[in-house]
Amino acid sequence: MGMVGGGRGAFIGAVHRMAAALDGQIELVCGAFSSNPARSIESGKDFYLPEDRCYPSYKVMIETESELPEGERMDFVAIVTPNHMHFPPAKMALESGFHVVCDKPLCFDMEEALELKRLVESTGLIFALTHNYTGYPMVKQARMMIRNNEIGAVRRIVVEYPQGWLSTKLEAEEQKQAAWRTDPKRSGKAGAMGDIGTHAENLAEYISGLQISAICADLHIHIDGRLLDDDGSILLRFNNGARGVLYASQISAGEENALRIRIYGEKGGLEWAQMEPNTLLVKWLDKPTQMYRTGVGELYPEANAHARIPAGHPEGYLEAFANIYRNVAKCIQARLAGEEVEEVYADFPSVDDGIRGMHFIDKVVESGNSNDVKWVEM
Amino acid sequence: MGMVGGGRGAFIGAVHRMAAALDGQIELVCGAFSSNPARSIESGKDFYLPEDRCYPSYKVMIETESELPEGERMDFVAIVTPNHMHFPPAKMALESGFHVVCDKPLCFDMEEALELKRLVESTGLIFALTHNYTGYPMVKQARMMIRNNEIGAVRRIVVEYPQGWLSTKLEAEEQKQAAWRTDPKRSGKAGAMGDIGTHAENLAEYISGLQISAICADLHIHIDGRLLDDDGSILLRFNNGARGVLYASQISAGEENALRIRIYGEKGGLEWAQMEPNTLLVKWLDKPTQMYRTGVGELYPEANAHARIPAGHPEGYLEAFANIYRNVAKCIQARLAGEEVEEVYADFPSVDDGIRGMHFIDKVVESGNSNDVKWVEM
Amino acid sequence: MGMVGGGRGAFIGAVHRMAAALDGQIELVCGAFSSNPARSIESGKDFYLPEDRCYPSYKVMIETESELPEGERMDFVAIVTPNHMHFPPAKMALESGFHVVCDKPLCFDMEEALELKRLVESTGLIFALTHNYTGYPMVKQARMMIRNNEIGAVRRIVVEYPQGWLSTKLEAEEQKQAAWRTDPKRSGKAGAMGDIGTHAENLAEYISGLQISAICADLHIHIDGRLLDDDGSILLRFNNGARGVLYASQISAGEENALRIRIYGEKGGLEWAQMEPNTLLVKWLDKPTQMYRTGVGELYPEANAHARIPAGHPEGYLEAFANIYRNVAKCIQARLAGEEVEEVYADFPSVDDGIRGMHFIDKVVESGNSNDVKWVEM
Amino acid sequence: MGMVGGGRGAFIGAVHRMAAALDGQIELVCGAFSSNPARSIESGKDFYLPEDRCYPSYKVMIETESELPEGERMDFVAIVTPNHMHFPPAKMALESGFHVVCDKPLCFDMEEALELKRLVESTGLIFALTHNYTGYPMVKQARMMIRNNEIGAVRRIVVEYPQGWLSTKLEAEEQKQAAWRTDPKRSGKAGAMGDIGTHAENLAEYISGLQISAICADLHIHIDGRLLDDDGSILLRFNNGARGVLYASQISAGEENALRIRIYGEKGGLEWAQMEPNTLLVKWLDKPTQMYRTGVGELYPEANAHARIPAGHPEGYLEAFANIYRNVAKCIQARLAGEEVEEVYADFPSVDDGIRGMHFIDKVVESGNSNDVKWVEM
Repeated sequence: MGMVGGGRGAFIGAVHRMAAALDGQIELVCGAFSSNPARSIESGKDFYLPEDRCYPSYKVMIETESELPEGERMDFVAIVTPNHMHFPPAKMALESGFHVVCDKPLCFDMEEALELKRLVESTGLIFALTHNYTGYPMVKQARMMIRNNEIGAVRRIVVEYPQGWLSTKLEAEEQKQAAWRTDPKRSGKAGAMGDIGTHAENLAEYISGLQISAICADLHIHIDGRLLDDDGSILLRFNNGARGVLYASQISAGEENALRIRIYGEKGGLEWAQMEPNTLLVKWLDKPTQMYRTGVGELYPEANAHARIPAGHPEGYLEAFANIYRNVAKCIQARLAGEEVEEVYADFPSVDDGIRGMHFIDKVVESGNSNDVKWVEM
Repeated sequence: MGMVGGGRGAFIGAVHRMAAALDGQIELVCGAFSSNPARSIESGKDFYLPEDRCYPSYKVMIETESELPEGERMDFVAIVTPNHMHFPPAKMALESGFHVVCDKPLCFDMEEALELKRLVESTGLIFALTHNYTGYPMVKQARMMIRNNEIGAVRRIVVEYPQGWLSTKLEAEEQKQAAWRTDPKRSGKAGAMGDIGTHAENLAEYISGLQISAICADLHIHIDGRLLDDDGSILLRFNNGARGVLYASQISAGEENALRIRIYGEKGGLEWAQMEPNTLLVKWLDKPTQMYRTGVGELYPEANAHARIPAGHPEGYLEAFANIYRNVAKCIQARLAGEEVEEVYADFPSVDDGIRGMHFIDKVVESGNSNDVKWVEM
Repeated sequence: MGMVGGGRGAFIGAVHRMAAALDGQIELVCGAFSSNPARSIESGKDFYLPEDRCYPSYKVMIETESELPEGERMDFVAIVTPNHMHFPPAKMALESGFHVVCDKPLCFDMEEALELKRLVESTGLIFALTHNYTGYPMVKQARMMIRNNEIGAVRRIVVEYPQGWLSTKLEAEEQKQAAWRTDPKRSGKAGAMGDIGTHAENLAEYISGLQISAICADLHIHIDGRLLDDDGSILLRFNNGARGVLYASQISAGEENALRIRIYGEKGGLEWAQMEPNTLLVKWLDKPTQMYRTGVGELYPEANAHARIPAGHPEGYLEAFANIYRNVAKCIQARLAGEEVEEVYADFPSVDDGIRGMHFIDKVVESGNSNDVKWVEM
Repeated sequence: MGMVGGGRGAFIGAVHRMAAALDGQIELVCGAFSSNPARSIESGKDFYLPEDRCYPSYKVMIETESELPEGERMDFVAIVTPNHMHFPPAKMALESGFHVVCDKPLCFDMEEALELKRLVESTGLIFALTHNYTGYPMVKQARMMIRNNEIGAVRRIVVEYPQGWLSTKLEAEEQKQAAWRTDPKRSGKAGAMGDIGTHAENLAEYISGLQISAICADLHIHIDGRLLDDDGSILLRFNNGARGVLYASQISAGEENALRIRIYGEKGGLEWAQMEPNTLLVKWLDKPTQMYRTGVGELYPEANAHARIPAGHPEGYLEAFANIYRNVAKCIQARLAGEEVEEVYADFPSVDDGIRGMHFIDKVVESGNSNDVKWVEM
């Protein structure tokens, strides 16, 4: 694995490295960790990389690695830069024959997104988008329960993602994470909706197997002088007639990272909360609610394949994130070996999920900007 | 107290009787428990009432009681009939000089509502509406914390009220509660939004001290052949600029009575859930969340005045309901004694809350019926 | 109902009155609320009693009421005094033909206990002890599940009752509740173990249907100068070979009233916590844990008969307490009518539970006082 | 790192590998993964090791690696075999100059334990014991809060460790984990108390800073034919006069891995549960309970140094386990660099913790075997 971005002080770069390392299937062999060459080398040292594989730019990295013999060169590129810097390295990596793991949202705008999709299709390379919340075992279980009609046809979905960390104008205090996320030049046209709303959208569609067909959004900026939405709520209509609500907020003071989804069908409901991820509440009409738990009882193979340790030994965010990397690794290994990967592992967010997310951002901003039009199709 | 409705088999009538009895301040002295005179008498026997005070109709009750000497006749009328039968007895009681405790929503439509308001104002009588959820100690605490600016200006309110009991077409099975609630002739123009959405609206405005200024609603009927909404979501804008979401659903399979509210201000957030009512979560920017509990530590007098027993001895729905009756009793006693009631007790939902609820129903239905207009002012 | 004790400022007296009033089956008709005659009358006024039925002592009350005609005199006596004052009125009430509801523990020592048992047996009168925690619907459910072998033979019981309110020397601050409970002359030979340990013992035996056969106790006084145990732990052996732990503590700072029991059988386990009493966790070997809830799904008739309102409308401490009074009322009514009471209602703690509790106190103190003998039979 | 044990199908070996890999500071370079040489090589292939560093035995591994040049040979040995096979490789590793990370309990009996302690002291090498539960950030926070007297002098400790997985005679079904853990020849003289009771003991002493001074144990075997305790409870006395209870059970049907500790001081109490490890409840006398959370607010540096990602992104068992490895790596790196390691990192369970655990096992078994002697000093 070669990494673009994620030098010292970056949050998500470290997450990607730990996630990639956890299962002993992926080795970080090179990186362009910073646009500052000296800092790239410094960062590489932290990871015990030789200096000559700490590149001054993603371009140099991809060019140089391309020329290394197979088996020696990196197998894929991990892109962990701010949103506006996803597209250039992703494009170049694909064009140079490297698989890609890319942080979400896919890129800066829909034009880039479609270009990436074309490239993935034309090259046939693996492209994974780290909508990491789909990596949790209990999310897999929820998806399979709905797919197998355990709760009946879905009628209602409520997905919420409140955070509180942007309750003050953090971007004015040179907080790096806040700075780029609230900057339309680096983040794109949406703020909270792009950063975390897309996770909520992705999770709702992933678990339910449905598609959002129309939205009605109210976006707001609560902090004076902020440039992108920090809070928003959306009425949802799904392609099967189900209704729902999605909201994403970064000014919900006192909330940490409280992604939560509830899906109700004709016979029962499911509830999953990211902050207690090893529990899936399964609610029934006139029967006791069940607490499905990672590792307990008969779960779907899709759930069990994404857990590592026995029940009651909590697995968390990094393990879910690692599931994406592990699955990518399995797919790459299978390709190298000319084999089919087992179906349970051939499951990670793709460029299509990325396209869907960019579309969601477009439509949410369109709807949020209108005080007149009620429903925007999606 | 004389009761209209609430004979054998009624749900809310029994709740009112228990709530009224709990504190030993109110005695049930008569009733018109059923429109069937024989059944009214039978029901009255269950409550150890003499036959001659079990009336065949509210009219006879109010007339007859009016002629009894003071001190012997009922002091107030409790109305626990389906919505379409709130207005007639309420009107007559007020016109006959009796205070009124009325179940919610206030009445059938806005015209009736305004007439009741006029009567309450012209007679100066006490009129209480049993939006019982405002009776919980931790709801009082939340309201006082916001009033005293403990969490800063409110930015976001999420209030949700999912139930699952109408997930099937219960009204077709002669279930009495389902039958009238889904019947527009008895329930009014809204279903779930009238039955429980008004509780959510009332709670949000009561705790926050704000008013909803505009709404954008999506109402839906999920059960074929049902006549009123059984599920709906609303985007909210408040008069101070706060944003939010309200939803009420009776097809959220597996949910019991899961009213929950979260209010976020500049400095922190509050979370209260009716099903675990003795806890108020108080969340802070960068400080540990606190679990305020009924009876623990320094709470506002308004909270303490509505709890009866020491911390850790859970008080529930009936106790909160009883707080409304107890406060009404205190107010009536104070009037009889020519005294002022203590301020902490002069707090129960009024005819104005009822007007507000009826207005909410009107506007929600108006918004829900439109696929074009986005925002309806309220 | 006539009440002994429970005048202004008393905690448990008010609880008994609310519990008795809730269901409209019991009327407070007289009382000896205080050993101070003037205060007894004052207290009686609070409850709207005529002065001539506010007696200066329990003796006068029982004598005077005995002479009233049937139908006019009280039907039973409720005793809510400190422990050392349970026996005299209970004895006299029984000897005078009155049924008795008595607060727990039964009395001051075993001698009194045995005398009461003899009297209950010889008179055939109803005697109820308010081990109120057995009144919760989910406690009934747990008991029935074990009785019907749903979790298999019981192997392990953990029952704990931590409180924190005696973490400081409250009895030195003239706090009435603390003063008598820490005074061996009024409380008896045990402190925390008598006050709340007996509840834990009673609950464990009630739910499990087992009897504790041997104990090994460590009692301690953490507050200098306190005269009775404020903290203690006990190893338990049950008559079927099950093992377990019981502890009761009033110096567990920050705990409210955290009675909790877990019972494990061959096939599963049950967990119930008094502070969230409408939930019963049912855990299974290799199957998801179930959350049984008051009012949800198919519960035993014994559970349903002790709930009043639909699922999700929390019932609490007073409702559970009221279940004892309601059952007593049903039993008295049945006797008066010469009928059998329905079996589900013929269930409240009896004088035998009281004897068992006094025996428990004796044995715990015996074991706690010994640093040598390991096991004390019980 | 070279590993002893932990071949295909082993549970704890995989945990150690993931924990070691997570932070990119430790590389698995060799192993003796199985006593079967072919299987050792096969296992090594899974980890991408060259065949010549997959050794047929720990002896060959240590001998061979000793002869490799510094920088090339392993830096330390990780021992993940069943208990009876801890001592031989640990001894040889230490004698050969290798640091050691060893699974718990330390070894088979006290004699071995003391020998290891002598070797650690004489060689000055680093020896870490994976009492992994001490690696959680909130455990560090709890320890520091008590050390800084935030809750006052400790009065009561309740530590419990229920599991249910040995509720049936799993060892008869050739379940590898069950087989050795219930076999006195491989596990030692204690069953549940050795396997998980030692974790509970270690955690209680680690957080409280106290030592258990006397115990009174009741051990039991619930499954016919099982050879070691599967359930036990212990009364505890601590060296400062605090009292408490410890229990460990593997027949608590339906429990996963429910290690939980509550510590009460004069001013407040702490509660931490392993299955929800990012929350530390801090309870106060007459103030609201606080939920301390990993990453939220001002925590002790010792807590923050053991968390990797922002609040609300749950870290779990593997991350806590990895903290021990990361700290060992930091200590080894510091030694190699001739520097002092930062104090917050110089914290992992040592051979002394191991000695303490072996002593605990000895004394618990002694006490558990006696029906006469009440207190056994420890």
